[in-house]
Amino acid sequence: MELLTENLNIENGHLTVGGVDTVELAREYGTPLYVMDRDLMAKTAREYKSAIERAYGKGNGRILYASKAFCCLESCRFAAAEGLGLDVVSGGELYTALKAGFPAELICFHGNNKTDAELKMAILNGVGHVIVDNLFELERLNAFALEEGKRVRIMFRIKPGIDAHTHDYVRTGSIDSKFGFALENGEAYEIAKATLSMKGVEFTGIHCHIGSQIFDIEPFEDAAEVMLNFMAKIKNELGITLTELNLGGGYGIKYTAENDPVPYGAYIEKISVRVKEVCKRLGISLPFIFMEPGRSLVGPAGITLYTVGSIKEIKGIKNYLAVDGGMADNPRYALYKSEYTVVAASRMNDAPEKEYTVAGKCCESGDLIQERVTLPEMKSGDILAVLATGAYNYSMSMNYNRIPRPPVVAVSGGSKSVWIKRESYDDIIKNDI
Amino acid sequence: MELLTENLNIENGHLTVGGVDTVELAREYGTPLYVMDRDLMAKTAREYKSAIERAYGKGNGRILYASKAFCCLESCRFAAAEGLGLDVVSGGELYTALKAGFPAELICFHGNNKTDAELKMAILNGVGHVIVDNLFELERLNAFALEEGKRVRIMFRIKPGIDAHTHDYVRTGSIDSKFGFALENGEAYEIAKATLSMKGVEFTGIHCHIGSQIFDIEPFEDAAEVMLNFMAKIKNELGITLTELNLGGGYGIKYTAENDPVPYGAYIEKISVRVKEVCKRLGISLPFIFMEPGRSLVGPAGITLYTVGSIKEIKGIKNYLAVDGGMADNPRYALYKSEYTVVAASRMNDAPEKEYTVAGKCCESGDLIQERVTLPEMKSGDILAVLATGAYNYSMSMNYNRIPRPPVVAVSGGSKSVWIKRESYDDIIKNDI
Repeated sequence: MELLTENLNIENGHLTVGGVDTVELAREYGTPLYVMDRDLMAKTAREYKSAIERAYGKGNGRILYASKAFCCLESCRFAAAEGLGLDVVSGGELYTALKAGFPAELICFHGNNKTDAELKMAILNGVGHVIVDNLFELERLNAFALEEGKRVRIMFRIKPGIDAHTHDYVRTGSIDSKFGFALENGEAYEIAKATLSMKGVEFTGIHCHIGSQIFDIEPFEDAAEVMLNFMAKIKNELGITLTELNLGGGYGIKYTAENDPVPYGAYIEKISVRVKEVCKRLGISLPFIFMEPGRSLVGPAGITLYTVGSIKEIKGIKNYLAVDGGMADNPRYALYKSEYTVVAASRMNDAPEKEYTVAGKCCESGDLIQERVTLPEMKSGDILAVLATGAYNYSMSMNYNRIPRPPVVAVSGGSKSVWIKRESYDDIIKNDI
Repeated sequence: MELLTENLNIENGHLTVGGVDTVELAREYGTPLYVMDRDLMAKTAREYKSAIERAYGKGNGRILYASKAFCCLESCRFAAAEGLGLDVVSGGELYTALKAGFPAELICFHGNNKTDAELKMAILNGVGHVIVDNLFELERLNAFALEEGKRVRIMFRIKPGIDAHTHDYVRTGSIDSKFGFALENGEAYEIAKATLSMKGVEFTGIHCHIGSQIFDIEPFEDAAEVMLNFMAKIKNELGITLTELNLGGGYGIKYTAENDPVPYGAYIEKISVRVKEVCKRLGISLPFIFMEPGRSLVGPAGITLYTVGSIKEIKGIKNYLAVDGGMADNPRYALYKSEYTVVAASRMNDAPEKEYTVAGKCCESGDLIQERVTLPEMKSGDILAVLATGAYNYSMSMNYNRIPRPPVVAVSGGSKSVWIKRESYDDIIKNDI
């Protein structure tokens, strides 16, 4: 039984997370329950920060926490406390960050279709960078900034043409993407040129994001080189000197024992080497570097706890084990057939011996958490843990079947604190007339 | 240009729904916007009701509104006003129904893994029927009912072994399902027998649901026959006379012009004929019949309105047209690659000439509404309508990227009323600590 991350252990036959007994967590807060290990999040953040300082020089780079993986007031406060920057992709994420007191100048605002209201919100609150996705956005942003007498720092989202191997649904970076400007057809060059006459924007850098859940380093190095070549080109041909390079995220995490991610700092170290080499060759200054780990910062730090309900053993077919959550709190199996590691949190010392299909309680056949999971013989009332659910689980959760969303409880130094309260039935009907 | 349903028309180049201009709706309430045509819902409900009365006799059957397709206070009030029963699948749906003042005795409570709290809630509120899914549930329900000195009417969910052709994710009815008791291995018979010694439950009928979005009538007729055979068997062998037969739902709707659903009443008429025949042959009394149209009652009555934002024409590749919603308000394309009809609501008189991929604004490549949609040459600011979104769109919506969920506005007799208010950013952070 491999527990994926070092913060998970076994004590008295129970799974512990950050030293806290998961069966007690389930008892205290009820299930389904998201648990985040804040200490593991902090450790990972510090590994990234020290890697970028070591490999690229102190003050030459910034790690951005990608909100879309997991966003709430406390995640923003965490990012601030750890000295990270913050990515937001919507007005809602920006609102959350501002309410948490996150410094606006350290925020990057992404998105392929920002509304007028979102652009104005970014300008009025002094967001550090808007990552501009398209001409329509650039023109409005420039106009709105001029109306307010402001100048907004922007980066362009560039499609570097690197197509990292990953699931179809989360692949980006190639020319066939709803995001950004392509290099190969001249779009990116044209938009860079367009900024020359715009007084409402300050064009400081470029951004790319080549995909998600990537286990190789080479695509990131190659993307960095492509981006630097483009920076040199627009310096030489347009006289625009860019000082910032945002290399996005997408580092793979361990969902199952088969996944083999490289150590967190390795991406940054390898990329730093390549960036330095290429800048030297091209004769351009080293840019300030941004990295955007989302999934890898929070994914491994989260687990979800469920209570086992009905168990249905269909001879010769399948054993269905139903939990008190499902696709409403984790739609990733229904969406992508995502693999997860499922363990019997309340009986970790019992030998796995039986194959189960772990189903949710939604009224939908596709509501499964995972298939072909080998567990000890389970009983109703047992606690099940699904590992590495810290990213894209709470953030994609829904009220399908009007099921209230679970709370998020964080553990740190052996103590517990609620980050997000459990939804009530009254919350669910709150906007019903 | 086929508009799928009779309530959609074109006036002054704009799409109208129930006689109301969609461009005006978009202006008044903002976008994204769900619009429900209450009159079409009512017309469909009345067709079902009159079909069951005509074909099966007045007072011999009941149409149940399946909440999971679309549930809010007003949908429950609608069901009450139209004299329908109500299906709920969770405490949240039951809570909504009760808050709307829906008569508890006309509610059926479904679900494969009801919690203790949900079972007690059903008992204490006098829910009409609990549709029992498994032995674990039956035992608890019986015990809880005895504790309260009550006797709860139950039906069992039966897998009739009918495997209606449909998408993998929504197929049910075969033995490999998380729902219900199989006939072929004796499970269903055993559970029926188990009720003989239980004083907390009154076993009155059986229920099946053979799938979703089904366009044939035969599977429903065959399922009815299988169910009646089982009723006869337990009458003859166990002496249990069941008076109720719940045949579920699953009638297909027209998402695109290619879909060819049978008229709403046709299912009921054909099934009624078969039920009468089979009962006569088996020598059993005609049962009271329940039907559970969910999708077909509300799906065609709903549309979603979006405003077009960025348009990205990538020569030789694809034209991306981004709207101000996406997978957060309609995850069905991401989940099932569901087909939808998309029309240019603000320029219905312009000839379709260009192929677009309609993308959302979420920070995810898989966030598409539909691919290969032919529309007039579109401009930012145009209003787009996605048709037949009344079922499983609002109900599956989420706050991914912390995007607020759109409001639901109903039209009826040319007037408009809000059924669900738009979520605010404050709603989104409401449970954040």
